[in-house]
This record gives sequence, structure tokens and C-alpha cells, in this order.
Amino acid sequence: MRDTMKEINHFREERDWRKFHKLKDLALSVSIEAAELLENFQWKTSEEAIQENFDNIQDEIADVLIYSYMLASDLNLDIDTLILNKLEKNKRKYPLEKSKGSKQKYTEYN
Amino acid sequence: MRDTMKEINHFREERDWRKFHKLKDLALSVSIEAAELLENFQWKTSEEAIQENFDNIQDEIADVLIYSYMLASDLNLDIDTLILNKLEKNKRKYPLEKSKGSKQKYTEYN
Amino acid sequence: MRDTMKEINHFREERDWRKFHKLKDLALSVSIEAAELLENFQWKTSEEAIQENFDNIQDEIADVLIYSYMLASDLNLDIDTLILNKLEKNKRKYPLEKSKGSKQKYTEYN
Amino acid sequence: MRDTMKEINHFREERDWRKFHKLKDLALSVSIEAAELLENFQWKTSEEAIQENFDNIQDEIADVLIYSYMLASDLNLDIDTLILNKLEKNKRKYPLEKSKGSKQKYTEYN
Repeated sequence: MRDTMKEINHFREERDWRKFHKLKDLALSVSIEAAELLENFQWKTSEEAIQENFDNIQDEIADVLIYSYMLASDLNLDIDTLILNKLEKNKRKYPLEKSKGSKQKYTEYN
Repeated sequence: MRDTMKEINHFREERDWRKFHKLKDLALSVSIEAAELLENFQWKTSEEAIQENFDNIQDEIADVLIYSYMLASDLNLDIDTLILNKLEKNKRKYPLEKSKGSKQKYTEYN
Repeated sequence: MRDTMKEINHFREERDWRKFHKLKDLALSVSIEAAELLENFQWKTSEEAIQENFDNIQDEIADVLIYSYMLASDLNLDIDTLILNKLEKNKRKYPLEKSKGSKQKYTEYN
Repeated sequence: MRDTMKEINHFREERDWRKFHKLKDLALSVSIEAAELLENFQWKTSEEAIQENFDNIQDEIADVLIYSYMLASDLNLDIDTLILNKLEKNKRKYPLEKSKGSKQKYTEYN
């Protein structure tokens, strides 16, 4: 992981791209790549998408991850800590007895 | 990393949520969370966004990552391999002599 | 307007495309086109985006509108009524005395 | 139509909000609202979404339209012309003999 982040940062530093990477533009890039990922599923079932677009789906998941990692890196956030902290919050928002087997949002719980 | 993925999968399995996690819906969820991340920057500079919304920005990066990790996991893809493979492709698309200091897309190179 | 909607529907009927236009896929298409619009602004100021990408910006606004109109049409909703109803709601959420000159969300009012 | 645009512009002028409406932020807002529209379909079929979230779906289509109209207005573009011009382009990209009954992208035609 640490190595992956180093590779990502090396890639942009070697190209002198950090000067373009304003946080707002990185956030915007995550959204753009997420939509390119989603485009693989347009007019398709999940199965059709995987069968027809598996290579591109991999590339687009990677692009979402790369921009998200850059954003985290520029904010001095550790990826694993970030995820584990959020999972802890989600556990409190979605206690087992209310959430099990249900797709309700926690805002819909009574 | 491997541990983080285990935690994510444990979270959804404990809640019996895997049955909702069709790949198309996971891809759609990445887009929704990416937009929630972006919302923190709406009408704001990067600096204002960080100052006013730093906690929520962390939560939303985490949500983007969590859904992207689920998608990767369900496709039997390793996160680090996924990222490193894409960086290799990007290096070929953006050779140093064309890309250094330039924000041109590779499709605009001549 | 009514004529514009007719043209949109004629375009897809003539191609026998209505069968692909599930509501979920139309909603997903609005998001994809919105991201393509946004891509014109990536790494750019508003002014740079307009100067460099004005033609594509027009095309992408149109694509967002076309899919939104299809969605409205398939739900038997009139575009003008839809917009005017929402403006009425917004007026109630953002009363002049609280909203004037402020970019606060109504959820942040006290 | 013209009247709807006037109402939209009146709404933001009365609140002195035009100063916040940089083009890049309006484009970003279209993406955010498109994702809020999409959220109504998360983990759901089209039918479930309409049954459970019809009111919110109407509101979110309206929000996408309102920001798209503002963007068009600020660029001095007429909505109907914008749509009709794009439909003409689409007709050339998707000639009947290639597109009829097919969900292929024009980039996939041979």
C-alpha cells in the first residue's frame, strides 16, 4: 500500500503535474472517473457489462482509486485509517439489529 | 490492505448485504459517493472546502474507496495490482517528453 | 418546447431505442453526461474552459437536457411545471431574509 | 420556456446569488444533482424507485434542469436550439441503417 502510494506520487512528480492538482480538481476528477466506470454498465445488466467491458472496468476502478489516493495523500491521510474509521462510523449508523438484511438508509430508521 | 478488505467484507456479510451488491449498483454507488465528496467543494475554493468541511471530506473519500474496494473484491481483483497496472498504461500514454509540465490529454498529442 | 420533446421522442422511436430506455438507465445516463460536461472544466478555470471547449460544453449541456427530458417524458411530467414547482419549493426553503447574498445551505440555517 | 428561464434567473437574482454562479461551479452542480437523482435508483429496480421515490425523483430532475438552464443562460444559449442542434449531430452519428434496434455506440460501428 505504502508502495502503491509512492508509485502514484512518483508518477505525477516525474511529470511535474502536482501544480495542476488542486484539491477541488482532484475531487472533480474522482467524479469524472466514477462516471467513466459507470458508463460500462449503461444499458446493460451487470453480467453483460462484465462480459463486454471487463478490461475497461478494471482501468476505471483503478482511475477512481488513483485520484482518491492522490486526494488522501495531499491531505496527509492514511488510506487504511480512513477506511477503518469510516467503517466504525457505519457500524454505529447501521447497528446489526436494524440493518441486517435490510436496504433501508439509516435516515429512514424509526 | 488485505486486512482492510477483510474488514469491508466482514461489515457487509455480517449485515447480509451482499445480496444487494450487484456490480451495477456498486458502480452506481461509487458515482453517488464521488458526488457527495464533490459537494464539499461546491461554490468554494479548495482552501475554503478544507477549512469548512474537512471531516466530511474524509468520510466521503472513504465511502468512494469502500465501494471501489467492494467492486474490486467481487471481481477478484487485487487493489495494488489494479493500480500498478493502470500506472504502467498511463506511463505509456503519457511519455515524459510529451507530458512533462503539460495538462494536455494524450488524445490531444500530435 | 413541446416541439423539442417531440423531436427527442421521434429520434429514439425511429431507432427503436425505447426498449433500452429503462428509467434507471436514463438516470444513469444523466449522470454520465453531467460528468462529460464537467470534464471540460477539469484542471481549468471557467474562462479557460469556455475558451478551449465551448463547442463541447454546448454538446454536453444538450446531452444532459436530452436524457433529463426523456426521463420526464417517460414519467408523463411537463418540463415547465416540473421546474416551476421546484422553484416554489426552493423559495420556501430559501426565504429572502435568510438566503440573500449567502451561500449557506438551508440545512445550515438556525 | 422563455418564461421558465426568466423565473429561474429571477430566483437567483432576487437572492443575489449570481456572484456565486461561476460556470465551473454550475457544471459541478449539475453533476451533484444528477447523482442525487441517481441515488433514488440505488439498490432498486426502476419500478421500485418510482414506487418509493417518485416525489424526490421529480425534484431531482428539476434540479438537474435548473442548473443546466442557468449554465445555458449564462452562456447566452437558447435551450431549444441547443437540443435541436445536438439531435442533428446525433442523427449523423447514428444513421438509421446502423443504429436501428442496436445499442452500439457509434465509435463501435465498422
